[in-house]
Amino acid sequence: MNKSAFSFQLHHVDARSAARRSTFHTPHGAVEMPAFMPVATQGTVKGLDIGRVRETGAQMVLGNTYHLSLRPGAETVAALGGLHAMMGWDGPILTDSGGFQIFSLSQMAEITDEGARFRSHIDGSLIDLSPERSVEIQEHLGSDVAMVLDHVVALPSAPEVVHDAMERTIRWAERCREAASRDDQVLFAIVQGGLDARLRVACAERLRALDFPGYAIGGLSVGETPAEMLEALEATLPVLPTDRPRYLMGVGRPEDLLEAIGRGVDLFDCVIPTRNGRNALAFTERGPLRLRNQQFQQDTRPLEEGCPCPACRHSLGYLRHLFMAREMLGPVLLSMHNLTYYQRLLAAAREAILADRFEAFRREKFEGWASRDGPR
Amino acid sequence: MNKSAFSFQLHHVDARSAARRSTFHTPHGAVEMPAFMPVATQGTVKGLDIGRVRETGAQMVLGNTYHLSLRPGAETVAALGGLHAMMGWDGPILTDSGGFQIFSLSQMAEITDEGARFRSHIDGSLIDLSPERSVEIQEHLGSDVAMVLDHVVALPSAPEVVHDAMERTIRWAERCREAASRDDQVLFAIVQGGLDARLRVACAERLRALDFPGYAIGGLSVGETPAEMLEALEATLPVLPTDRPRYLMGVGRPEDLLEAIGRGVDLFDCVIPTRNGRNALAFTERGPLRLRNQQFQQDTRPLEEGCPCPACRHSLGYLRHLFMAREMLGPVLLSMHNLTYYQRLLAAAREAILADRFEAFRREKFEGWASRDGPR
Repeated sequence: MNKSAFSFQLHHVDARSAARRSTFHTPHGAVEMPAFMPVATQGTVKGLDIGRVRETGAQMVLGNTYHLSLRPGAETVAALGGLHAMMGWDGPILTDSGGFQIFSLSQMAEITDEGARFRSHIDGSLIDLSPERSVEIQEHLGSDVAMVLDHVVALPSAPEVVHDAMERTIRWAERCREAASRDDQVLFAIVQGGLDARLRVACAERLRALDFPGYAIGGLSVGETPAEMLEALEATLPVLPTDRPRYLMGVGRPEDLLEAIGRGVDLFDCVIPTRNGRNALAFTERGPLRLRNQQFQQDTRPLEEGCPCPACRHSLGYLRHLFMAREMLGPVLLSMHNLTYYQRLLAAAREAILADRFEAFRREKFEGWASRDGPR
Repeated sequence: MNKSAFSFQLHHVDARSAARRSTFHTPHGAVEMPAFMPVATQGTVKGLDIGRVRETGAQMVLGNTYHLSLRPGAETVAALGGLHAMMGWDGPILTDSGGFQIFSLSQMAEITDEGARFRSHIDGSLIDLSPERSVEIQEHLGSDVAMVLDHVVALPSAPEVVHDAMERTIRWAERCREAASRDDQVLFAIVQGGLDARLRVACAERLRALDFPGYAIGGLSVGETPAEMLEALEATLPVLPTDRPRYLMGVGRPEDLLEAIGRGVDLFDCVIPTRNGRNALAFTERGPLRLRNQQFQQDTRPLEEGCPCPACRHSLGYLRHLFMAREMLGPVLLSMHNLTYYQRLLAAAREAILADRFEAFRREKFEGWASRDGPR
């Protein structure tokens, strides 16, 4: 195995938008993009056996370096054959670097150039995460794509804070690349810079000069408005190389995905379909449904006509019952449905791009989501 | 549809035990017996989508009248097409009568000849459950096999309490039969009588005279020892007609099933495989394993070699991780495994009976379970 197993093919750019249809090849198979990765934080997409994950149409999944390094521990994952073998997932895997979790989970993270020092959310023990250690952990996990350790800041933050974090992210990206040793794993860089377009451009340019095999846009979806996020995206994407995958981290709702695809993003991950599913919210062509709604009590219709997922073989009334009765199967089925919904949405987007009708497709979807003409 | 869709065929009785190989035909298909029914208390085998339930090898499932009548309500189940349609289960279903839940869930059940009055475990509201209402609910649920309402008492109880409950159970059985109106549902009687062999015999004889299409042994597994349970079983079974199914309610562990099969029981239900699975206990050919055990941390072996279930495609180390990280997938996978284990055990028992080697089979299984020679 060597890095030649990785390649990126850009097949087509939509005639009226920047939407791209591409394929990303990895040692564990190809990812047809634009693509959405379900999140398997602790080595499992919550509640779904791996066969059911595959059946949603997922091509690539994401594992969290921070969580897996605490439990069961990176060395244990390695002893169990790496993350692919441990999870039973033979497709591509991407692991994040822990940068976002330092930001989101740690009340008392201390970040210096050396790295981050923070307390475990499990037992409060002190943890040091340097760029080198993040790469080491991800090499133990054995993902196909590893991410550089980045410094994420809340939005809004003072300009000098955002600037410092961006500079540190670039220094850390170089150190990560220096530390990386696996031939069957590539490292994606992460563009930071908050909502400041000039910082985003500068960061993207400098990382581009470092010639990474893929680029992520990080530090978004952390408190800014959707419009602000899209502006940051619009500043960043034109600076990134066209012959590399572009990954928007931690985003988002179906509408966010289509907006980002139209601007040239290829890859996404987000907990929304599974987290919202566990909380009884289902995505459909008519917009989101709240399954606890009393009006579904005796509704014999499925969540979504024509959806092949296991949830849609049941009635809305049954799905509501499962949530009202606090049955595990409610979260399980709605997670399957929402992931299936995302995968079908992305598959349709890929078709629309090839047909040069992505913008019309996006408008149709937005109209459907706003129509609320089905069961609510 | 009419009652002619139901029939019972006794194929063979083991040469050295009372173990029976039989088939029970219902409007929703045949049940090869001895058989084990997974419990779908609230219309779901906890955590398992219905396709995965089918894949465990389950032929018939059990629904709980008490729970379903409280939530979502019998009329709602009927509006959703009945329990088969609601759950998406096209095989046979048996519903209990609520008798056991009156006993087990209700602190303040008041039982008179009219029926039981008790408080809902959900909202404390007063509920009246008479034999007639139990049948009405089960007709709304639309199970293939309904059970008569019975009066279950704790063991030990005073002789007159046990006697009274037995007499009431017989009176209620007659009233249930009087109330039953569906052609596509049969009603099984329930033998009570505590641990008193004479009471058990008397109850079985009088119910036999009433000519029910199937007979259950109830009121066991409620505090007595396994040996006491088997004695009560030995007293009862010879009195039951040989040309009707015999169902031992709420039992049990794998060893209990084999002991009961050897005495002539055909049908079982129990929450043990799913409840224990949710609590990290797995049944295997070497006896039960506790998955939280530290020694499995880096164990790459599967739970059970040759087991086709989704859990056994993973390592012990991964299964342990799921429980330590409190991931839903741990309970989900172990429920699948334990149900698969039970179904494979029963399938092997059916083979052994036909080959006149059930007793040897039972001994081999007991030796395996005691060997503890695999991972512990």
